[in-house]
Parts: sequence; structure tokens; C-alpha cells
Amino acid sequence: VSRLEPVSLALSGERFTATYAIAHEHDVARQVAQAICVEQTVEFPYELLPAGDIADGVVGCLEAFVADAGAAASQPCFHATISYAVETVGEEFTQLQNVLFGNVSLFPNVRLEGFDLPASLLANLGPRFGVAGVRAIVGAQRRPLLATALKPLGLSARSLSELAALFAGAGVDLIKDDHGLANQRFAPFAERVARCAAAVQEVNARTGGRAVYAPCVTGPAPELAARAQLARDAGAGALLIAPGVVGFDAMRALARDPALGLPVLAHPACLGGALQRPGGMAHAFLLGQWMRLAGADVSIFPHHGGRFSFSQEDCAAIARALGEHSGDMRPSLPAPAGGMTVERVPELLETYGSDVILLIGGGLFRAGPDLAETCRRLRDALGRYE
Amino acid sequence: VSRLEPVSLALSGERFTATYAIAHEHDVARQVAQAICVEQTVEFPYELLPAGDIADGVVGCLEAFVADAGAAASQPCFHATISYAVETVGEEFTQLQNVLFGNVSLFPNVRLEGFDLPASLLANLGPRFGVAGVRAIVGAQRRPLLATALKPLGLSARSLSELAALFAGAGVDLIKDDHGLANQRFAPFAERVARCAAAVQEVNARTGGRAVYAPCVTGPAPELAARAQLARDAGAGALLIAPGVVGFDAMRALARDPALGLPVLAHPACLGGALQRPGGMAHAFLLGQWMRLAGADVSIFPHHGGRFSFSQEDCAAIARALGEHSGDMRPSLPAPAGGMTVERVPELLETYGSDVILLIGGGLFRAGPDLAETCRRLRDALGRYE
Repeated sequence: VSRLEPVSLALSGERFTATYAIAHEHDVARQVAQAICVEQTVEFPYELLPAGDIADGVVGCLEAFVADAGAAASQPCFHATISYAVETVGEEFTQLQNVLFGNVSLFPNVRLEGFDLPASLLANLGPRFGVAGVRAIVGAQRRPLLATALKPLGLSARSLSELAALFAGAGVDLIKDDHGLANQRFAPFAERVARCAAAVQEVNARTGGRAVYAPCVTGPAPELAARAQLARDAGAGALLIAPGVVGFDAMRALARDPALGLPVLAHPACLGGALQRPGGMAHAFLLGQWMRLAGADVSIFPHHGGRFSFSQEDCAAIARALGEHSGDMRPSLPAPAGGMTVERVPELLETYGSDVILLIGGGLFRAGPDLAETCRRLRDALGRYE
Repeated sequence: VSRLEPVSLALSGERFTATYAIAHEHDVARQVAQAICVEQTVEFPYELLPAGDIADGVVGCLEAFVADAGAAASQPCFHATISYAVETVGEEFTQLQNVLFGNVSLFPNVRLEGFDLPASLLANLGPRFGVAGVRAIVGAQRRPLLATALKPLGLSARSLSELAALFAGAGVDLIKDDHGLANQRFAPFAERVARCAAAVQEVNARTGGRAVYAPCVTGPAPELAARAQLARDAGAGALLIAPGVVGFDAMRALARDPALGLPVLAHPACLGGALQRPGGMAHAFLLGQWMRLAGADVSIFPHHGGRFSFSQEDCAAIARALGEHSGDMRPSLPAPAGGMTVERVPELLETYGSDVILLIGGGLFRAGPDLAETCRRLRDALGRYE
């Protein structure tokens, strides 16, 4: 069989790295780290590989292996940093995902913590607008932004558009569809988007405001591009999408489409199952580093202490990953959400600083009898940071 | 605000159910179950909902709540069955995924176990070929099928096609690309597919065999349909795709495309992170029931005792979910894999019966010096079941 002949691939030598937390005792953890090097690349008995560049360059390489200083003696854990040749990715985001996490996602006690990519792999990835771009659109230099969601499911497109107008008039910066608004007959996609975009534009024209409507374009794969285009043509100012439903590459494609030119708000629906310990993926990886790389200008995630389970540390780590320096890539905005209330605003600003979007949904309705007044009060409070 | 006016939606009354395992003590578990009813639908304060059909029909309904008989007293667990109105889905597979698991994926200690759909939601879903269809294509009535993968990454398209020819000549039924073969310059997609499909067709023409080549079409969202079409035009007999990378709806769209007309082999890459306890998703749901609904004619998953972590019970449950009666939906074939060896074949048949695909990759190379002879021996052993 020809495969046994030596293989020469003229590899560039450029590599990227991923770091995995491996919760096993030292010797097993080291074996698992070596197994990951093979599993994520050739998935083939190492000793039977042809001589040359497949064995020497295509297979992952264990670059560092260090004990977790904070791990209890009874629950040992090691951090393995593994490098891969850039050529294994073939310039496709889908294959980058596969190399970082494909089969290793099925390994017990292995958690993907993060990655480090050279400039060549960052090209054409990341948000097109980022913090500064979104700020320019809504006309806010420094202050935290205010966002809310149109709901509940079951309202008509007309009722949702009336809510959108109320929010726009009360100073809400970003008005998104609830992520469960798809194409149900209660408020069909095309009608809802047309009505809500028009309502927000009318209010903006009257008040000089710059509120943005972000319809939910999560939908069937063959219709995604058309929904995004319809949203743009109707006057929507951003898109809401759930990459856990449509795939991260579908989000990337919308975010990087110059003909579309709309910021992308990423919703975490269906992604929570993987945010586990000791297996799964780190919060800062999935909802921070990866969301940003996949083009999210805004990453929505549940803030600590709401209806969900994220720790204060996990939330802060997500925000850091969205904002930290990474080549020429723009930073993204964190949008903590999930059972937020008006009372928690000071705590939110303490955790995230002012480059943040406060996404408050149902909490606005609970905060008092006059919804518009609640929004105005919040917006005024945030305005002091401008 | 008009939303407070009563809402009438003329709901059909038809509902579907999902079952969640909730690992909390009784009272908390019951509260969580009620919270899921709201979270997966209106995501809005229940007490503030408008009167009428939103509160009475759109919100999920807790239909059953039973203690897990096997749970230890120190780790209580309850099974909650929740019904949702079919109208919440709006006839879109993406929104079905969202209702079943969107936000609840972010709840700690809640695991999606499975679902039950009425005939109206099953329409246009599920495999187009199923067990009988795949059997007809490879010409095997009753015996287990034999599958393998073209690898390692780094081989040229020519070398991979030589391997494909060897496997086809030695009686392997399904010859798939390794799931890491994308569009790397080592073996670019178009050249690889053309060469491998041609190689298998030539062998089939010479031997009268009916081997099928299944190229990996996992790739950028905007190119998926074109890759599948190219594969079909080149003479591929099936498609390999990783829905954890491209999204389940993208797989559904390929599987249900009558103009394409190729069986779909689903690979579990990137899905493992969610297969956890006590949160996440049940193996039988994700790799069984859901894969089948999303159009997988074949669901590939790691068999117990290989390089991965699945229990014998989880594997058997996946196979049951792929095969069990479900309206008019065709059953799918389980393809246990992941470090399989020739020696384990009898055990595999005992677990899965004969409606199974034995997917053996690297193990074939390790089983002896003559790869073709190893395949022939295996194929002969399986032939006794025909």
C-alpha cells in the first residue's frame, strides 16, 4: 500500500495551540494528552504512520504539560497545551472547530480551555463591528448600553412592534427579538421584521434616537441568508442568531458578509450542555473566545445569580476573553442577561466595567407599572457614564 | 401597552412532549420543572402574561413528574414530562431544537432525556433511506455491514483513492472519509472526491461489488450544498457530515433533499461535550432519537470500551432509539466505532444484533500485515449472517 511510503508535505512550520484541562492522575493525564495529539489530527495508530511529515508535523505536539496548582490532591488535574500545524485546518473555520474539539469532546475528563492562533488563522475571522463599531451605531462613546427583548411568544407582529416603539422611545439602545421568535404564525418572520424595523425607525426619526432592532434570524439552514437579507432590507440594524442551533460557521458567514454589513448578537441557546466540568468546554472558551472568533459583535450569556448557573468567575472570564488583545481582532461586547433586574445594575457595572450591554427582559416588566418610565430611568442612570 | 389585552390564538390543542431528568430534591425539582415550562416558551414573568392562549396554551405544561426509582436518597432525581403546543415550533426544525433544549441547556442538573412527537411534527423529518434503504444500496439483506475510514490526514488524494480501491475490492460496504478530511491542500475536496469515487466505481464494475464511498462534506455553511452536489455528481454513494460542526438543520436539509438523494452518515464530532450527567443530554437522545429525526441514515458513535467513555447501557440505548417504532419514520443504523478491533466483532453483534454497521478504522491496520486480507476475513465472517 502506497501509504507506507514516506510523505513530504512542505509544511510551513506555523502552528496554533489549544489548551485542555485533563482531570486524571499524572501518568494517565499525560497519556491522554498524547492521545489527543493523534485523535485530533490523523486518528490513526501512530506507530503505523508513514515516515515523514505526517508523523512529524501533522500529528499534534504536546508543548506544555503542567499541574493545576489549585487542584486538590484527591482530584488531580493537568493543563496540556498542544500545537497543531495550520495546514490541518485548510483555511476553514469548520475544520478549525473540528481540530480544536471534534473527537476530544467525547473524551471523559477533558475540557477545552482555550486556544492561541497566529495571525494567518485570524484573517477574516472575528467581529466586523466590535465594541467601537456597535458604539458608533447607537451613538454612545463610553456608557454601558441598554438592551431588551421583544416577547412573549404568542403576541402578534403588531403588538411586538408596539413594544419595540415603546422601548425605542424610552431610550433602549438594542431591541432584539426573543430568541424563540422564529416563523410561527403568531408573528411570521417577514411581517414581524417589517413592522418592528419600521416602528423603531419611525421613533428614531421623531426623537433623533439611534435605537437598533435586531430580529432573530435563527432558522432553517437553506433560509438563513435570505432571512438576514430580508432583515437588512426591512431596516433592521443588527441580527440575533443562536449558533448552538444553526452552527458557528453559519454565524461567521453572516457576520463576515460585507454585502450584509450588520452587527451580530449571539445567543447561547443549546450551548449550555457543553459547559461542564470536568469534561466539556470552558465558559471563557465557548461564550468568549470562540463566539468572538466566530464573528459575534455581542455575546449574550447568563449573568451569575440569575436563573442559570454561571459563577461570578466564569462570567468575568467570558468578558475578559471577549475583550482581551488578540492580534488585530476587534473586541466584542459582553451582554450579561438571564433574570437580570433593575436593582442589580450597579453590581453588573462593577463586574464588567462600562463596555457592557445590560440585557434586561422580563425584569423590566416586573420593575414597575410604567414600562417606558422604567426604561427611561435605567437609560438615564447609564447616561451618567457617557 | 396592548400586550396586556387578552390574546386568542386558535391553538389546535395538538402538543408534543419532552422529558427532562432533574437532579434536585423534590420541591426544588418541581420548581425547576415549572420554570422549564416558561423558559422554553414565553421566557416572561408568568404572572404578567396576557390572559388567554399564551398563558393557557403557549406556555409548556407539566404533564408528569415522577421520582427516579434508581436514584440514591443522597442524590435525588425526578423525571419531568412537559408538553408544548405544536404551534410554538412553527414547522421549523431549528425552532423544535430550541423549544426542546434552547435555554434549559443552561440550567444546572437538568438533562434532556427524549421527546415524543405527533405525526404532524414528524412529517418531512427522519432518514430518507433508513435501514432498508442502506441495505438495498449495498446489497445486503440481513448481515451486519462493514465500514471503514480513509486516513490518515496528510495522504494525497491519489493515496487515499488507492486505499479506497483496496477496501472496495476486499468487500468493505461503506468507505467513508475520515471526518477530519476537509479541504486541506494535502488532498483537496474536489480532487479527493473525484478520485475516490472513481476508484470505488471501477472496482465495483470489475468485481460486481456494491461498495459505497461517503466523502466528508463538513465544511463552510455557504458551501455545504455545493459540496454535496459535487460529491453526488462525482459518483459518491453517501455523505459523511458532522452536525455538531455544521448544525443539525444543515444535515436535515441535505438528508431530505430529493435532488441529492444520498444516504447520510452522521459523525458525532464536537457533540461529546453535552453528553454529561447530571446536566446535558442523554446519549440516547442526542445520538439516537435526535440524529434519526435530523435525517441520519447512519449514526456513528463510540462503542463502549474503545478510546471513549460510553457505557454499554448508553450504547444499547442509542441503538434502541435509532431503531424503535416512531410513527412512519424509518429506522436508522447504528455504527459503533472508536478504537474497534477485529477481536471485538462477536461482542458487537451481541450488543447490537445484525442491523448494525461495524466501523473499524485504525484497528484494521493493526490486525495484521495484509490489510486486504484482514478486510476479506471480516467480511466473510459477517457474510454468514446473510
